[in-house]
Amino acid sequence: MEIALLGGTGDIGEGLALRWASDTNHTVIVGSREVERAEGKAEEYETELASRGREVTVEGLGNEDAAARADVVVAAVPAYHLTDTVESIADDLGEAILVSPAVGMKRDEDGFHYNRPGPGSVTQLAANAAPAGTPVVGAFHNLAAGRLANLDAELDWDTVVVGDDADAKATVCELAEGIEGLRALDGGPIANAAEVEGLTPLLINVARHNDGLHDLGVRFQ
Amino acid sequence: MEIALLGGTGDIGEGLALRWASDTNHTVIVGSREVERAEGKAEEYETELASRGREVTVEGLGNEDAAARADVVVAAVPAYHLTDTVESIADDLGEAILVSPAVGMKRDEDGFHYNRPGPGSVTQLAANAAPAGTPVVGAFHNLAAGRLANLDAELDWDTVVVGDDADAKATVCELAEGIEGLRALDGGPIANAAEVEGLTPLLINVARHNDGLHDLGVRFQ
Repeated sequence: MEIALLGGTGDIGEGLALRWASDTNHTVIVGSREVERAEGKAEEYETELASRGREVTVEGLGNEDAAARADVVVAAVPAYHLTDTVESIADDLGEAILVSPAVGMKRDEDGFHYNRPGPGSVTQLAANAAPAGTPVVGAFHNLAAGRLANLDAELDWDTVVVGDDADAKATVCELAEGIEGLRALDGGPIANAAEVEGLTPLLINVARHNDGLHDLGVRFQ
Repeated sequence: MEIALLGGTGDIGEGLALRWASDTNHTVIVGSREVERAEGKAEEYETELASRGREVTVEGLGNEDAAARADVVVAAVPAYHLTDTVESIADDLGEAILVSPAVGMKRDEDGFHYNRPGPGSVTQLAANAAPAGTPVVGAFHNLAAGRLANLDAELDWDTVVVGDDADAKATVCELAEGIEGLRALDGGPIANAAEVEGLTPLLINVARHNDGLHDLGVRFQ
């Protein structure tokens, strides 16, 4: 499968790109608004993977070209860029599945808090911005970017996947479970996305207040 | 220590009562609005514990008398009864710590959702209803009542503890960790309680949508 990571040059996008390229045979395409930045990062990821004996090609493309190539497009951009990003690639999506991992948060003196957008969730924002007929799936909201991008770190995490299209959700669950140490759980329809997104500020608050804990994810058990 | 479980006759209160009586040497007092109901449940718990070779006394009292006796009072009542319950025992709390495990949820056709109260969280509701000077701590929000009350079930869960009084929070963390298989994590001040409470509907949604998963809690890792 071909996976495009829009915003694949930083944060959660970097970790997903490295893990999929390392753990699966899917083709990973790094997308960015700036092609040169995407190319540079793709080369960086290839070097990192080669240093671990994993000789793979990671492509770097502009967001539109990346989206046009892919079967699955992950909009790994901050929540406040999500609508713009999805609209900018709307004509290129074809029959691809759009995946939203973004979470809106606000921070005050006490900690991080979920900043629920008007439509109910960030995943719903993505669905609203996507063309009619594009299946939208929420996933990868609760993965600590730092640990995800550190291929020396073993994962033992769950990711809760939400979506209204069962086939698209099944495809994303399969992609998620291609990453070693990651279990995909069905969270139901997009209407349940706020509870999934709202877990991320809790993970950050817990990491901030407990010595020895950082880069946290969760296991449901 | 003496622990009163208001609403200790059902749901999360039953599980906490059984676990503390089973795993620690704290005195457990079951509180209810109806004394007879509290006495009946306390006897039931004693019988259950005795059948496992654990000979302990569990007391059953009216809520006011239970609160007056205890060092720690857990308001294990539904969120919509919380304010009334706390107000009804306000004169009996003395120097006790008040613990709020309640979560407000609403259910629609898609799943369960966090029903955030006006003051920001259910824990904050408890703090608003408590007398000035009573330390209020939020804890035990994310424990599946069924598994907690089944002493045959081993736990491997975290509970996130929030509060504005560091000493009270430390006492509640210690109580929590007295339960085998339960780890207490500091979630910061009460202002962070909504994110903790909001995890409970996610646990229910995940359990409903995934075969083989039920009575879920979480580990942060």
